[in-house]
Amino acid sequence: MDRPLRILQYGLGPIGQSCAQTILDKQAAGHTALVGAVDVDPEKVGRDVADLLDDDRAPTGIEISDAPQAVLDETDPDVVLHTTTSFLDGVEAQLTQCLEAGAHVVSSTEELSFPYERHPDRAAALDEAARAAGVTLVGTGVNPGYAMDTLPLAATGGCTSVDAVHVQRVVDAGERRGPLQKKVGAGITTESFAEKKAAGGFGHIGLRESLLMVAEGLGWSIDTVEETLQPVTADRRVETPVTTVEAGEVAGIHHAAQGLVDGRACLTLDLKMYVGAEAPRDAVQVEGTPPIDLTVDGGIFGDTATVGMLVNVAALVEEAPAGLRTMMDLPVPRAFGTRPA
Amino acid sequence: MDRPLRILQYGLGPIGQSCAQTILDKQAAGHTALVGAVDVDPEKVGRDVADLLDDDRAPTGIEISDAPQAVLDETDPDVVLHTTTSFLDGVEAQLTQCLEAGAHVVSSTEELSFPYERHPDRAAALDEAARAAGVTLVGTGVNPGYAMDTLPLAATGGCTSVDAVHVQRVVDAGERRGPLQKKVGAGITTESFAEKKAAGGFGHIGLRESLLMVAEGLGWSIDTVEETLQPVTADRRVETPVTTVEAGEVAGIHHAAQGLVDGRACLTLDLKMYVGAEAPRDAVQVEGTPPIDLTVDGGIFGDTATVGMLVNVAALVEEAPAGLRTMMDLPVPRAFGTRPA
Repeated sequence: MDRPLRILQYGLGPIGQSCAQTILDKQAAGHTALVGAVDVDPEKVGRDVADLLDDDRAPTGIEISDAPQAVLDETDPDVVLHTTTSFLDGVEAQLTQCLEAGAHVVSSTEELSFPYERHPDRAAALDEAARAAGVTLVGTGVNPGYAMDTLPLAATGGCTSVDAVHVQRVVDAGERRGPLQKKVGAGITTESFAEKKAAGGFGHIGLRESLLMVAEGLGWSIDTVEETLQPVTADRRVETPVTTVEAGEVAGIHHAAQGLVDGRACLTLDLKMYVGAEAPRDAVQVEGTPPIDLTVDGGIFGDTATVGMLVNVAALVEEAPAGLRTMMDLPVPRAFGTRPA
Repeated sequence: MDRPLRILQYGLGPIGQSCAQTILDKQAAGHTALVGAVDVDPEKVGRDVADLLDDDRAPTGIEISDAPQAVLDETDPDVVLHTTTSFLDGVEAQLTQCLEAGAHVVSSTEELSFPYERHPDRAAALDEAARAAGVTLVGTGVNPGYAMDTLPLAATGGCTSVDAVHVQRVVDAGERRGPLQKKVGAGITTESFAEKKAAGGFGHIGLRESLLMVAEGLGWSIDTVEETLQPVTADRRVETPVTTVEAGEVAGIHHAAQGLVDGRACLTLDLKMYVGAEAPRDAVQVEGTPPIDLTVDGGIFGDTATVGMLVNVAALVEEAPAGLRTMMDLPVPRAFGTRPA
């Protein structure tokens, strides 16, 4: 790219702040330009973006605004990095507003990564808005978006036959940022876990989406998707920088999804995120010709990889066909705006 | 895809024959249709394709022809799978003829995978021919095309910074088809190896192309590419189904390429293909944020994965923009026309 990619950062929670840092880092080398920042939090509005970041960065001149339309109009960004929530509920208007302003949108909204089952009507409306504006909308991140969908699909790239695909992700939540530890229930009781589970919206958002994306990518018709969500309990006291989990308390989640064809689990996604996890890893096993036994030892570190995916995909959407897309439709994701050191 | 992908198989050497088998296998399920077959070998011309394959397949009704233009005219294929040689020398006319007939072309020609350095003029001419015809041309296979370029690029998908990428491929040539064992010099003397090396055209074709593709994908400017090619000598007698290598004889090749920036090897590709190789594997190490330590244990078996890549990519080119493309421009490769078993 011979000009900086002009990015508007929409949402400045922990992920959005990391995105802003990465965009500003790449801006120094001419790869990107942070042109605007949007957040609704009154504590953030009106402040310089740099003021929010946990580094000693000089002021950027970009003031956080709670008026997205005004910022879109004033800055005319190439891409909006949208990081506000996991669910499509309530963000459809945010996304549509950006699309109608003529900006590509890369969103961390987990449900957007493959929205066709849970939200077919919203997916159709967003697709139409994106096509009408001639821009691309895609939901991505490390998971969903990469570790348990794009990477497993890529693992089958050389296969002439595939009988089954099994994906495993083990994350040591203790190494991750505080909100994630909270999200997986680290330190709560198993009773509290059961209550949260019964209330819904708990567990990893996007596992079902990843499974459906892999199935679609392989052209497989899944009869049923079965999901299970269970607590992983600590077998010893675990201390992390933000919490302490006593033996017997919940250390995190074990969330699994399997796609059944003729009663057989031909596609399984198994996710464990808990504090004190041993041997964190991402693994893909393809039963097929040739068989593939792929492991990312230590795993793909989610705090940074989510940000990496969002920024790297932002550099790919300009060449993509207009409309609502998934990671399957885009070129092979790769690091953007880096230099050897 | 709701109609079979109509494929012309151009070249019926070992790889082309395997492609034909795979196309015919997928044809039974309605994913593909083998519409024509071309080869110049007088031993093959006029025979039914099935007659050439080492399985007990019934006649296909597809007769091997040495007249590509006539076959193109008669069959109007969606895609030509082109598997005739490793080098662009001499195949430019074959490729252009297919493109001008309005067919997408997926070729195993190693030099075509990233032809911009070795063959800039030919690349430009082929790109122009493909654009003029509104079709896509791409060179791919397991290596180049996947193991040492597309997969390493995909490994950086979630990285916000990349300092260096190191790729390793160790292949047990003894498990591979005879021509590959011969290609790596299994069973020759080290003197003979030195002669072959001096004569040129020896070693793995495409390593340089893979390195340049990864560099381009990362947006890195490499100052110099350094290549080394050395024999791996057998430390014990190794027998394979097609040859025997005595201790001290050449077991295969060790071919390495490194891309230097400011004197530092920030991008290294290390390939060992020899009979009796221990711990065959494909590995990618990304020094960056986050770091990535990816291994395909046992490696990606090349005899089938080359065929897999060719057929799987054939299913992707229809949606790709017209012109000469590389694997970087295409969607994430994944298995096409498989079903869970």
